[in-house]
Amino acid sequence: MKPLSIIKIGGNLLDNEVALNQAINSFSKIEGAKILVHGGGKKTSELCLKLGIAPNMHKGRRITDQATLEVATMVYAGLFNKKLVSKLQHLKCNAIGFSGADGNVILSKKRPIKEVDFGMVGDVESINDQLIINLLETGFVPVFCAITHDGKGQLLNTNADTIASVLAATLSSNYEVALKFCFEKEGILSNPKDENSVFPKLSMVEYLENRAKGIIYEGMIPKIDNAFDAKHSQVKKVMICGIEGINQTKGTEICL
Amino acid sequence: MKPLSIIKIGGNLLDNEVALNQAINSFSKIEGAKILVHGGGKKTSELCLKLGIAPNMHKGRRITDQATLEVATMVYAGLFNKKLVSKLQHLKCNAIGFSGADGNVILSKKRPIKEVDFGMVGDVESINDQLIINLLETGFVPVFCAITHDGKGQLLNTNADTIASVLAATLSSNYEVALKFCFEKEGILSNPKDENSVFPKLSMVEYLENRAKGIIYEGMIPKIDNAFDAKHSQVKKVMICGIEGINQTKGTEICL
Repeated sequence: MKPLSIIKIGGNLLDNEVALNQAINSFSKIEGAKILVHGGGKKTSELCLKLGIAPNMHKGRRITDQATLEVATMVYAGLFNKKLVSKLQHLKCNAIGFSGADGNVILSKKRPIKEVDFGMVGDVESINDQLIINLLETGFVPVFCAITHDGKGQLLNTNADTIASVLAATLSSNYEVALKFCFEKEGILSNPKDENSVFPKLSMVEYLENRAKGIIYEGMIPKIDNAFDAKHSQVKKVMICGIEGINQTKGTEICL
Repeated sequence: MKPLSIIKIGGNLLDNEVALNQAINSFSKIEGAKILVHGGGKKTSELCLKLGIAPNMHKGRRITDQATLEVATMVYAGLFNKKLVSKLQHLKCNAIGFSGADGNVILSKKRPIKEVDFGMVGDVESINDQLIINLLETGFVPVFCAITHDGKGQLLNTNADTIASVLAATLSSNYEVALKFCFEKEGILSNPKDENSVFPKLSMVEYLENRAKGIIYEGMIPKIDNAFDAKHSQVKKVMICGIEGINQTKGTEICL
């Protein structure tokens, strides 16, 4: 099978123009088929605040009311998606931006209300893998934002790490996928105060131990859960890394 | 040649959910190849005001500083483009949203500064017609917002009527194109105070006469200029119409 790189960029990378340009440059140098997935950084919360909409988070995940969904759609599908696509086009990557609604590429279902009502949040139901494969095989570089839809005209906010993980799992039937969650640190740290304490590998046992000790916490937990979900779904290589890990092997490799 | 319908929706249609749903419903019923082009309604100005960015217009065209470009990108490429795409998907149109940056589909050039500096505004330089033809021939319905790019990583704001006109002119080499500029009135009015005074046809001579008399004015002028540009570029049929004109022949036909 041919290689496919799926790179998720998020965290502070999106809020820092220098870091973002470095990340995009590294991404543009990856050879072969590739996909970029991005979140929206702090911009959504900032814009919500300016517009008088209070941001509301639960364990690192956003609770999305209708007004917040509008802001997220503007920031993810508009501002960041088009900024990234135009920068990639300049670097001779034939990027094409997607929300899940475009070409019905990611269909999701509004999350059922349990202990928390996440609001207009969608859990991925299906991926239109044939459309993505057609694009990759004709040299396009799909750039996915974290907005999906329910097929009934409703846009939904979906965690970008989850989108990357599900894309990687689905496309592993056709490609040898390397999935990289890229953020502002060089990998998962064994000591949160020491930027150089990157785990070269992290197994499920080590993850659970470190999570129990509070060394791995908050926003890292859903990210690592998504990484393990991908690994359990036959994704060949799953990494959590910094900018330098985008087009070389550097960071924390997720192992079963 | 096969027929192709290119429908531009703008004006107050985008600000009114009922009118927007009617327009989308009518659009979804057009048979054969079709393209939707949309502007951003009043939302961009409203959002600029809320964010403390003063809107600035010159003869019906927006002057776009960097902050306004960010808002326009969010509203056009994010909010409206994805809302329209998800609504169309629900109506079984396989819609796929585009800014000019996606797939390098519309390349533009920053407008040179003459008597007015329009700021981050792009005049269309070229259309990637092969990409659009491939999409149409495989059953996709492209939905274009009014954001383009310069190929050097800069997004630019481009008049949506102009995008519709240039798309129609370019695709007239491959299709028998019907271009319709759809807005909140039923056509061009011979008496601005009488909604029923629609010109069934408007020639260049009649246009110039009515413009000189002040009957055709302000925002209508660039719209009609774009309509005549298309007609001069071998577009088979050019109409200015209301919602009812989307999937039937109703409104003002532009004639040479």
